[in-house]
Amino acid sequence: MDERTDTPPEVPDATVDHDRELRTGQAEAVYGPGKTPDQVRDIAVAIVASSSGAVFVTRATPEQFHALLERVPAATYAPRSRLVVAQRAEAEHTLGTVAVVSAGTSDLPVADEAAETAAALGIAVIRVTDVGVAGIHRVMAQRDRIEGTDVAIVVAGMDGALPTVVAGLTSTPVIAVPTSVGYGASFDGLAALLTMLNGCAPGVTVVNIDNGFGAAQAAHRMLTIAARRARTPSGSIAGDHTP
Amino acid sequence: MDERTDTPPEVPDATVDHDRELRTGQAEAVYGPGKTPDQVRDIAVAIVASSSGAVFVTRATPEQFHALLERVPAATYAPRSRLVVAQRAEAEHTLGTVAVVSAGTSDLPVADEAAETAAALGIAVIRVTDVGVAGIHRVMAQRDRIEGTDVAIVVAGMDGALPTVVAGLTSTPVIAVPTSVGYGASFDGLAALLTMLNGCAPGVTVVNIDNGFGAAQAAHRMLTIAARRARTPSGSIAGDHTP
Amino acid sequence: MDERTDTPPEVPDATVDHDRELRTGQAEAVYGPGKTPDQVRDIAVAIVASSSGAVFVTRATPEQFHALLERVPAATYAPRSRLVVAQRAEAEHTLGTVAVVSAGTSDLPVADEAAETAAALGIAVIRVTDVGVAGIHRVMAQRDRIEGTDVAIVVAGMDGALPTVVAGLTSTPVIAVPTSVGYGASFDGLAALLTMLNGCAPGVTVVNIDNGFGAAQAAHRMLTIAARRARTPSGSIAGDHTP
Amino acid sequence: MDERTDTPPEVPDATVDHDRELRTGQAEAVYGPGKTPDQVRDIAVAIVASSSGAVFVTRATPEQFHALLERVPAATYAPRSRLVVAQRAEAEHTLGTVAVVSAGTSDLPVADEAAETAAALGIAVIRVTDVGVAGIHRVMAQRDRIEGTDVAIVVAGMDGALPTVVAGLTSTPVIAVPTSVGYGASFDGLAALLTMLNGCAPGVTVVNIDNGFGAAQAAHRMLTIAARRARTPSGSIAGDHTP
Amino acid sequence: MDERTDTPPEVPDATVDHDRELRTGQAEAVYGPGKTPDQVRDIAVAIVASSSGAVFVTRATPEQFHALLERVPAATYAPRSRLVVAQRAEAEHTLGTVAVVSAGTSDLPVADEAAETAAALGIAVIRVTDVGVAGIHRVMAQRDRIEGTDVAIVVAGMDGALPTVVAGLTSTPVIAVPTSVGYGASFDGLAALLTMLNGCAPGVTVVNIDNGFGAAQAAHRMLTIAARRARTPSGSIAGDHTP
Amino acid sequence: MDERTDTPPEVPDATVDHDRELRTGQAEAVYGPGKTPDQVRDIAVAIVASSSGAVFVTRATPEQFHALLERVPAATYAPRSRLVVAQRAEAEHTLGTVAVVSAGTSDLPVADEAAETAAALGIAVIRVTDVGVAGIHRVMAQRDRIEGTDVAIVVAGMDGALPTVVAGLTSTPVIAVPTSVGYGASFDGLAALLTMLNGCAPGVTVVNIDNGFGAAQAAHRMLTIAARRARTPSGSIAGDHTP
Amino acid sequence: MDERTDTPPEVPDATVDHDRELRTGQAEAVYGPGKTPDQVRDIAVAIVASSSGAVFVTRATPEQFHALLERVPAATYAPRSRLVVAQRAEAEHTLGTVAVVSAGTSDLPVADEAAETAAALGIAVIRVTDVGVAGIHRVMAQRDRIEGTDVAIVVAGMDGALPTVVAGLTSTPVIAVPTSVGYGASFDGLAALLTMLNGCAPGVTVVNIDNGFGAAQAAHRMLTIAARRARTPSGSIAGDHTP
Amino acid sequence: MDERTDTPPEVPDATVDHDRELRTGQAEAVYGPGKTPDQVRDIAVAIVASSSGAVFVTRATPEQFHALLERVPAATYAPRSRLVVAQRAEAEHTLGTVAVVSAGTSDLPVADEAAETAAALGIAVIRVTDVGVAGIHRVMAQRDRIEGTDVAIVVAGMDGALPTVVAGLTSTPVIAVPTSVGYGASFDGLAALLTMLNGCAPGVTVVNIDNGFGAAQAAHRMLTIAARRARTPSGSIAGDHTP
Repeated sequence: MDERTDTPPEVPDATVDHDRELRTGQAEAVYGPGKTPDQVRDIAVAIVASSSGAVFVTRATPEQFHALLERVPAATYAPRSRLVVAQRAEAEHTLGTVAVVSAGTSDLPVADEAAETAAALGIAVIRVTDVGVAGIHRVMAQRDRIEGTDVAIVVAGMDGALPTVVAGLTSTPVIAVPTSVGYGASFDGLAALLTMLNGCAPGVTVVNIDNGFGAAQAAHRMLTIAARRARTPSGSIAGDHTP
Repeated sequence: MDERTDTPPEVPDATVDHDRELRTGQAEAVYGPGKTPDQVRDIAVAIVASSSGAVFVTRATPEQFHALLERVPAATYAPRSRLVVAQRAEAEHTLGTVAVVSAGTSDLPVADEAAETAAALGIAVIRVTDVGVAGIHRVMAQRDRIEGTDVAIVVAGMDGALPTVVAGLTSTPVIAVPTSVGYGASFDGLAALLTMLNGCAPGVTVVNIDNGFGAAQAAHRMLTIAARRARTPSGSIAGDHTP
Repeated sequence: MDERTDTPPEVPDATVDHDRELRTGQAEAVYGPGKTPDQVRDIAVAIVASSSGAVFVTRATPEQFHALLERVPAATYAPRSRLVVAQRAEAEHTLGTVAVVSAGTSDLPVADEAAETAAALGIAVIRVTDVGVAGIHRVMAQRDRIEGTDVAIVVAGMDGALPTVVAGLTSTPVIAVPTSVGYGASFDGLAALLTMLNGCAPGVTVVNIDNGFGAAQAAHRMLTIAARRARTPSGSIAGDHTP
Repeated sequence: MDERTDTPPEVPDATVDHDRELRTGQAEAVYGPGKTPDQVRDIAVAIVASSSGAVFVTRATPEQFHALLERVPAATYAPRSRLVVAQRAEAEHTLGTVAVVSAGTSDLPVADEAAETAAALGIAVIRVTDVGVAGIHRVMAQRDRIEGTDVAIVVAGMDGALPTVVAGLTSTPVIAVPTSVGYGASFDGLAALLTMLNGCAPGVTVVNIDNGFGAAQAAHRMLTIAARRARTPSGSIAGDHTP
Repeated sequence: MDERTDTPPEVPDATVDHDRELRTGQAEAVYGPGKTPDQVRDIAVAIVASSSGAVFVTRATPEQFHALLERVPAATYAPRSRLVVAQRAEAEHTLGTVAVVSAGTSDLPVADEAAETAAALGIAVIRVTDVGVAGIHRVMAQRDRIEGTDVAIVVAGMDGALPTVVAGLTSTPVIAVPTSVGYGASFDGLAALLTMLNGCAPGVTVVNIDNGFGAAQAAHRMLTIAARRARTPSGSIAGDHTP
Repeated sequence: MDERTDTPPEVPDATVDHDRELRTGQAEAVYGPGKTPDQVRDIAVAIVASSSGAVFVTRATPEQFHALLERVPAATYAPRSRLVVAQRAEAEHTLGTVAVVSAGTSDLPVADEAAETAAALGIAVIRVTDVGVAGIHRVMAQRDRIEGTDVAIVVAGMDGALPTVVAGLTSTPVIAVPTSVGYGASFDGLAALLTMLNGCAPGVTVVNIDNGFGAAQAAHRMLTIAARRARTPSGSIAGDHTP
Repeated sequence: MDERTDTPPEVPDATVDHDRELRTGQAEAVYGPGKTPDQVRDIAVAIVASSSGAVFVTRATPEQFHALLERVPAATYAPRSRLVVAQRAEAEHTLGTVAVVSAGTSDLPVADEAAETAAALGIAVIRVTDVGVAGIHRVMAQRDRIEGTDVAIVVAGMDGALPTVVAGLTSTPVIAVPTSVGYGASFDGLAALLTMLNGCAPGVTVVNIDNGFGAAQAAHRMLTIAARRARTPSGSIAGDHTP
Repeated sequence: MDERTDTPPEVPDATVDHDRELRTGQAEAVYGPGKTPDQVRDIAVAIVASSSGAVFVTRATPEQFHALLERVPAATYAPRSRLVVAQRAEAEHTLGTVAVVSAGTSDLPVADEAAETAAALGIAVIRVTDVGVAGIHRVMAQRDRIEGTDVAIVVAGMDGALPTVVAGLTSTPVIAVPTSVGYGASFDGLAALLTMLNGCAPGVTVVNIDNGFGAAQAAHRMLTIAARRARTPSGSIAGDHTP
């Protein structure tokens, strides 16, 4: 990708965080809504230019994608999730495996965003689809597939009860993603969010409503614990153990 | 501990989940509020009897602790966090290191709960205390200490901005714990919770308000990814990679 | 009980609904909070005097109960649920069976209120205790017991996910009772309430937070459908069937 | 209907709960919003194929209905309620009678959904329309018609006070359905929902805002109590009666 | 009362609105909470000194009342409503009649505050007590009594449905007072407040939760319309009639 | 108007409350949203047929108005307020005068609804426009005009502070109408509503957000107090005066 | 500008506050939404006619701007912020300097409104763009630029954490502007608003969501403290200093 | 004060921000709630030791104050506001004058906190007490006193309307402080907060509920604009003026 240069281009209307990848292992992402196609293109091009890892535009419109495509021909767009992958992680070595579990068919756009983000970050993905808790045997039938992965991202709207059930069945970290699927007293995902925060199964953590992207990024951090530890001189940080 | 027997004792008013440790790697915990000291004692004794791992009572009163102590003399109680550790993880092999970072002195009870839980689960803990974002250099001065750990648990009330800043400085998974510290428009932790869910740094996940215990349990799951993977025949679950 | 007379006594501060039992099959109940012991006593005595069915005081204090006991010696009080039964249904013929299923030990006071109310209304009760969805096999192990009853009252705080799971496993009507058990983002039962309203399993209906009494009363109405139908000349109301 | 086969078809993007009808007496329903017409068609066809009872698509668009119609010619669509009935209960034996009572003309779409669902489930329906509590004599004039049915489904927006009044006049179970009809401080049905949860007439249970479908499914469960009991060997579950 | 002087006394911590009675026909009232007994005494004494009408302290503690009593021996205190009447309207000519209608016995403190305020303002009061809508005939039996008054103040907690019913039965102005009586999803009176704001019977206006005092003051203004009109030279304000 | 007949016409989808005018002095109104033009026409025609007073359709669309116009040629429509007056009060005797006071130009549609409703009910109206509290002298300059009327309807969005100021300046009853004008933390009128409920000037009552119609109806009731009293044999209801 | 005359023109539908500039130093502004183009034009022309300072229309549509342009040819329109400047402050003497700091590119419309308003009020502006706290070094790199100004206006959506960080780094007054940028649990800016109100750095004050205009007006008041003080005879208001 | 040393003492449980005064001109403050007396003492002593300016403990208990007094004998405590001033600004040169305006007597504790903080920071204070908008002339009578100050801090609970009125009358910056004074729909200050955020008078900024301390700190920043500017080489930051 020929945009990568020593001096990152200046971008009007933006201050690109060129060092974020160095600090955090993850390049800055572009949030699409409220930006013009030109703004999205310029910011994304600048990030790609100074990054060796995966670069994303979330909730992108087709117009934003097409503006970007002129400058980054390898970019891809998934209409259902509205995710643009402007650049994939260079070394496609598998960091580990994530299960993306979704409660209903209507939750699939958010589940897609999580799965596509994870894949672009170099994570293997298995999908478990439409296994709401009203038919609990569908969840249990998938228990071993989920347990066989490293991290479970569990996506659910309406009652949002699925992550608690999954966390009670498996030993993986569970990242819960509430969705805005529902009506009436679902209050655009608030009900699912509250359910997930109050779930009784320890090991569940929660991200924002409809934030499949953030869930995959969090999974990425969990899957790089081992790699980071290898880089750190062992024992350098002891931990006092007596909190 | 002589309570561990082949046949778990029957407990009135409770259905102990004796297999949870097998399924999830974590024994069932006892939530103190709303239970009598006798109920707490009976349930905790039953869990200890069938568990080889750490066993906890959260938000316990001194009365509940003393009732338990008669049957489980090794139990410990931390008044500030109100956490009872009824049994520690048997093999105290260090799974890894967690940084427990707290924004203000008033957040310490919740931070303590996280740190004490982690320690009892066999995790080394370093504490970073009172580093709110209004004095951002205090956070940055601790950046390398935090980056040197495997997982950061970040505890903050009031504006709840600290986890985003930490996640933007480091590459560790960040588990954000909102606290009910604050007044007025903090609405008992709601403001901090919303801030954390809306943070722009990917890699942050959130638990319930004041739930230091859950944060440590989630960290425990993240730190056992490698161990679990070692137990699983590699390649058995491929991951299709095309989400 | 010598209070029952042709002319119901006048009660200061209250207008007793002496005909409610005739209209609805259920005598008026007394809501304890905000009433003096004398008010509770006078109102309850008046209802007992004109009723042949079960009479209740909910959320009663010991003082309210003792004031009542002077006039209605057969009254009983359950401290955990704070329910006073001032009079039981006269003919203790079993209308049917209700399963009172509760998610956690801390939910027991509300579950008790439901169970004790149902029993006083002439309904057989089985209890299924402490079967939260974080240990889903505990629920499934009880599936056949619940299915063997006529109505399931399912009591849960925190995430409130249990009623959906039960309704997906059985064919009984499910009355969901959210409880105020929890902390932080449970918002005193709001989270559980919203979960239950958004559950994906049709057949679930919901009552107010902590309202075990109302759940039992609703169950009573469901169990008298057959009896009422027997009293109505069949075919008198045809139903047009083309809505 | 020729789609019914021994091996249910595989459905992309969905995991059909083929056994739900066996467990719960009710086939899985399809929630329309957020699904493509093809997804709706494939899922509904699969459910019809393995079901002998009524099959529904709720909140369907005309496009979703027409896609389904190609494969299930007997399907019907009611534009006002947006309900698709893909298959009616085979034996149209009347399980009982439901009164669908609505407070205002604007509440009719939700009342229709309840009435049409009930009819397709084999329940006789009478309609009582536009009887808000601001003209209480309109309600009272219908009292005997409602009392003559087995279950009352009461649909109301704005102040949501009608179910309490109906429950105080009759002995039927009352299922309250808040609607999003209203403006200003109705907050899209929240006011009506809260009113119904706080109603003082025991015997009322509540479903989600605008959920006429769920109300009818709940009524169906209540009306099958007798049938289920006939199937169960009597006395097999005794009920201990001392809760 | 010897405190009335030409020069109103200076009051520390307060700026008494000595002309309010001239402008609005109602002297300033003292809101008790958050004030010391001395502050309450000094402010009330100053208002009494410059007022010829009724003077009130609302939500007063016994301590506040006793401090006041030293200086205003004619003051009275009603413990249930916590209302202090420091001075009654001098000419006890009856302005008209108000019906104070309350839904439940637990609503009586708020109903008392309304009734006592009205009486001290020179308004005749009739009380209609404990006529909730779950027993609608109790309301209807009182219809003629209410219709015979000039203004109805209707006090209700829980579902708050009573004012709508009363307004649909009568032609009086209806002032609705939500109370904080209830539990769970009553949210301290919010449910009743929303119900009242959404009631379908025009003619209902609403005051703050538990604000019986304000309701009586509003009734007072309604009852002085005729008196004020008599004082105004007729025709001076024409009204253009073509809005 | 030739629709008025002895036997009111039957209306599909509606149960017209033909006696409401007799009971309450106000004919039933038609709420436009959610109704088809045909439904609006049929219901309004039926009300006009049995009413001698003013008949309204609120929030009507032009289509609803035109459907009605075919049957009720005298009907009028005000596009800004969306109010249809299907029939005016027959005897246009002036009941009194209402001041409709609005805080900002954007509040005019709601103020119009109040003014047009009042005029059609036989009330003289004066308008005071655009006198927000940020320019308090504009309010004070209008003080005498407002005081010269019988009732003040005060309409305000955003901060909603105007009614309190008006009530502190005058002795008229003040009916406060919050509007949904505003942005951000106005939350569609919630901020104005809460302000009005918490205003410190007794004598203010509040109606639903944007409910200019209800405010005028309430004013109508207040203005008929004298007329109603004239019809009642004086002294028939004494009022016990000792609440 | 020839509209300025001795007698301000009368404006239908509005009561222009011609003296506001005298009292407050700032002419009245026109809030665009809910007004017709003609109303906006007439009101703005009237304000310009009687004002010597800056005159604004906020959130204007192009139609409103074009209507105004016919009468005020010097008016300007910024489509991104939708701000019309109908007249700039006459003497363009620089009152001081404001830093307009924004957290993300999507926050630019609100930041623009603040910057353009400030400039039209005679304030120099520097812009600091896209410096969210997830990349905290971007903020710190701008610390000295911000400290070099007189007032910082800090604009942020999503987590809203930026103002606290800026206030902890600098000694300028910080005016925080939450924006509605975000999704899910941002609740249209509520999360950012709460964060800002709870920030731990004293010196931060907050305006309404998306209210860049109000922030600039507040900055203007802060920058005229010195000028006002020069006009006041020094020492005239002593301040008692013993609060 | 002998605690001031070159090496700040280490404080357990806290990370004192010793440089905050250098960066922001204001030393770190101690928030009392949730801290032990020993923690408060140690932290405050450490801040005093490294600070030359005012040092505060907010919402302190008497116990916390007495612990501090042992080490900082010059500390003062105001029971009504619960403010501890551990050290006053050294040079008591008057920075300017602040008007602390409060709406009701019950708001005085918050107004005190603002006034006492301002005085300790070297600001002259005038108090305007008990001037709610229900008696608007009380506000107007104080207009010139307020206009004669540099900044107005306006404290109000209940309807929170006072700051808008003050800002419309004067040209000072207005810092609005909502208080939790009120009941019912005041929702612990939420109503006042929303009112203030939605006020139509530009120039108002808002702080957290009951945060008199923060208001005074913000005023301090506004009053040091001139001083800071004198320190900065003029013209060094130009401001581009074309936003």
